[in-house]
Amino acid sequence: MNGAHALLRTLVANGVDTCFTNPGTSEMHFVAALDDVPEMRAVLALFEGVATGAADGYARIAGRPAATLLHLGPGLGNGLANLHNARRAGSPIVNIVGDHATYHRAYDALLQSDIETAARNVSSWVRSADRPEVVGSLATEAIVQAARGEVATLILPADASWGEGAEPGPHAAFTAALRLPDDEIEAAAKALGSGTPAALLLGGAALRERGLTAAARIAAATGAQLLADTFPARVTRGAGLPAVTRIEYFAESAVEQMRALDHLVCCGTRPPVAFFAYPGKPSALHPEHAAVVDITAGGHDPVLVLEALADALDAPGSPAGIDTAPAARPDRPTGALDAASIAQAVGALLPEGAIVSEEALTGGIFLWGATAGAPRHEWLTLTGGAIGQGMPVATGAAVAAPDRKVINLQADGSAMYTIQSLWTQAREGLDVTTVIFNNRAYAILSIELMRVGAPTDGNAGALFDLSRPPLDFVSLAEGMGVPASRAETADDFVVQLERAIAEPGPHLIDAIL
Amino acid sequence: MNGAHALLRTLVANGVDTCFTNPGTSEMHFVAALDDVPEMRAVLALFEGVATGAADGYARIAGRPAATLLHLGPGLGNGLANLHNARRAGSPIVNIVGDHATYHRAYDALLQSDIETAARNVSSWVRSADRPEVVGSLATEAIVQAARGEVATLILPADASWGEGAEPGPHAAFTAALRLPDDEIEAAAKALGSGTPAALLLGGAALRERGLTAAARIAAATGAQLLADTFPARVTRGAGLPAVTRIEYFAESAVEQMRALDHLVCCGTRPPVAFFAYPGKPSALHPEHAAVVDITAGGHDPVLVLEALADALDAPGSPAGIDTAPAARPDRPTGALDAASIAQAVGALLPEGAIVSEEALTGGIFLWGATAGAPRHEWLTLTGGAIGQGMPVATGAAVAAPDRKVINLQADGSAMYTIQSLWTQAREGLDVTTVIFNNRAYAILSIELMRVGAPTDGNAGALFDLSRPPLDFVSLAEGMGVPASRAETADDFVVQLERAIAEPGPHLIDAIL
Repeated sequence: MNGAHALLRTLVANGVDTCFTNPGTSEMHFVAALDDVPEMRAVLALFEGVATGAADGYARIAGRPAATLLHLGPGLGNGLANLHNARRAGSPIVNIVGDHATYHRAYDALLQSDIETAARNVSSWVRSADRPEVVGSLATEAIVQAARGEVATLILPADASWGEGAEPGPHAAFTAALRLPDDEIEAAAKALGSGTPAALLLGGAALRERGLTAAARIAAATGAQLLADTFPARVTRGAGLPAVTRIEYFAESAVEQMRALDHLVCCGTRPPVAFFAYPGKPSALHPEHAAVVDITAGGHDPVLVLEALADALDAPGSPAGIDTAPAARPDRPTGALDAASIAQAVGALLPEGAIVSEEALTGGIFLWGATAGAPRHEWLTLTGGAIGQGMPVATGAAVAAPDRKVINLQADGSAMYTIQSLWTQAREGLDVTTVIFNNRAYAILSIELMRVGAPTDGNAGALFDLSRPPLDFVSLAEGMGVPASRAETADDFVVQLERAIAEPGPHLIDAIL
Repeated sequence: MNGAHALLRTLVANGVDTCFTNPGTSEMHFVAALDDVPEMRAVLALFEGVATGAADGYARIAGRPAATLLHLGPGLGNGLANLHNARRAGSPIVNIVGDHATYHRAYDALLQSDIETAARNVSSWVRSADRPEVVGSLATEAIVQAARGEVATLILPADASWGEGAEPGPHAAFTAALRLPDDEIEAAAKALGSGTPAALLLGGAALRERGLTAAARIAAATGAQLLADTFPARVTRGAGLPAVTRIEYFAESAVEQMRALDHLVCCGTRPPVAFFAYPGKPSALHPEHAAVVDITAGGHDPVLVLEALADALDAPGSPAGIDTAPAARPDRPTGALDAASIAQAVGALLPEGAIVSEEALTGGIFLWGATAGAPRHEWLTLTGGAIGQGMPVATGAAVAAPDRKVINLQADGSAMYTIQSLWTQAREGLDVTTVIFNNRAYAILSIELMRVGAPTDGNAGALFDLSRPPLDFVSLAEGMGVPASRAETADDFVVQLERAIAEPGPHLIDAIL
């Protein structure tokens, strides 16, 4: 069998049965091999940033890696921003990058570039399968590496893909769980039980139901505050689930939020740092006097560690005795459409089991609060700061969970980075409702311009103005086969969102703020 | 003055007065400084691939670098594919990438990545200006480096941008021209004058009027064939100019084209190699028996070398005695709209002085022939194989030459990589007419699938099908403020193209093939 077949067989045998791709000539044998491996679902994207972001969204919901298939260095380049975000999300991805035939590299053909160094930026593991014989075993290695919550990049030269003599790799064997970090758990128990102000900061898998339940037990036993990363990959939340407070985005607010803490226990994340540096402001956000314990620094499973910590504290058992969010929805809004009313409408209508992909930026400030008591749902955020993640993540999440409604709450400026996502949603009939928060500006940058202490007389601010010409997202969506409507009032928006939620398949609402 | 001001002052003092950008928080001081340096024109792009491709198009027409301004590693990643193309085009670009403040890097904030290694892929020069004091002098170095036809990447940490103590860099001093390569010129003269089949292969600056005229003198004196790179950055052509034959894209055709050659003299380029490797086919395209002389291997100016070579051959003086393309236009087509009739219409209507940005791929096979006798124009191609270059290049070319008509001949699949270009064209009122060759397929890949010897039973081919759903480029263009129309017959197309050429400003024609 040739390398391409061996690769596909290895992937599907290990549960990697979805591939987000935009292939080219050097990937043609992989494409041809798809005919013989029908267990693999290949999802076409019109741009690689959609493919890599979709693989991220898929992994966050499915809990296992998808593959990508990208075309040489430039294809990887196009996918790099969302691989960066995926790395920050801790999403497992088997990132396959086609390359020229090994003997062709010496000729420096036009598409030649240094794939490996570009890949290293986002990948914990990069290998080139330079002979058909090694494709299968390297594919297994890539899957094992990815399963650690990392991007593993497998470079596949065309001659290794078309060459014979390959065979599928061994079954992926995952390493046993680490022994629990007893010393750190003891230190954390002591800190949280000290009676002085303490917080438990959660990230990664700690923000799913089991982790949150253990954390809520700890809070009930100790009075510790439950905090979450500013930009978590996935939070399970809503009525009946323990609620967490996210660290504020603006550094000065985050400092204020944590000012009184004497102890900070981190689980599944690190002590919070400012998103950007600002003149005269600190990079680290927790108070200098606070003692930090990182209970998962050794790479331990956050959930197991939290449960052990709860037990060590003799915390009450679940579910009795822990705080959870009460069921509560805002009323449907009427009148003007703005950041508040749009959040109110989302809170009023969010369906049970929904998956929210949120990249609404300034327009989204009220969303988290307005949905706290909605029926149970998943919340996915922009994890690495590279805008253009929300639409691809929604796309991949919908592939992973065809029976759930995906709601993409999306800023206008960010939407334009990977707007091609809509076409894949239409092609695959994905159940995604996209809401564009259309304020016709890079509004966050006007705020940031002030915050960095660089006010201007206004000309420079023209670079944040998206109103000349205004973007018409209804036209854009329809141009890619997605039904769309424009909402100019809260009343419009409620009707349109309700309809989009009721009807399966992709929809877009251009919400004019 | 702060670093941002020093940088802007250095750029404009050295003729770099246009900046294609998509900035973020770490670039805010640069943005603010724009208010004080009105000589700098900042052109906003909705996606970094548009900004970098526009800088390439600008450089090809203006003959000098534009700057870019990108937001950290992910912004660079988004711009990487078109920087790759720019590198292959030999386009000068001062590529400015904002970074976190130097002291903030240690915190591994979410947007942190290794900018330098990603930049090395496309840049001959990468430096980080880590203190305000060095910003000015490094900016001068970057300009000097870029002027060699390269991408020079200047990383600008936020604290070097906002910090005081900077001053503008020295005036950019360019190195003197190299002494002509007498030995190579003598060898080339001997080869071309040998009486056996010989070709002069031209690339880079050799494909502008002065280089072509010298090459035509050489051809007149020796009978040598004039060939050009398959994908030149810019060719000046049309009625009254010496014509060149481009090396064929398909390797087997290119081999056939050169089979009889005993001598190949390269000027401004290297011996041609296959775009991709194919099983059992060669990577080098010229015959093994042919003797190769590379007269610009030492980095010499191709035009000066060609003129010296013509003189060494006692070639006839210009313009008498050299072959040029006769003025000739095809008739306006009627009937079905297809690759032939669309080319005929372009040939019939192309205005004097037009700039053509061509990325039509399979739909464009007849364009070069049909426009050979059209009034004098410039032809820009996809230089590095990373699709999504044509629309940004057209955008940048129009910024560089506001008095010339830019015609972007663009395949549908490739258009979707950087479709955001249309918004910048609308915002800046650029005189670009975009023609989408809408065949609703990645047609080139169906051909490549056969060529690599990997035919399939058809399922895999679904990955090349862009018809489910069809892309409606009229909607897409109107969504970004560009007037658009759909052409389904040759008659429609002629009327619409004529109107678009007559009216200034951006237009799009969705040509359904």
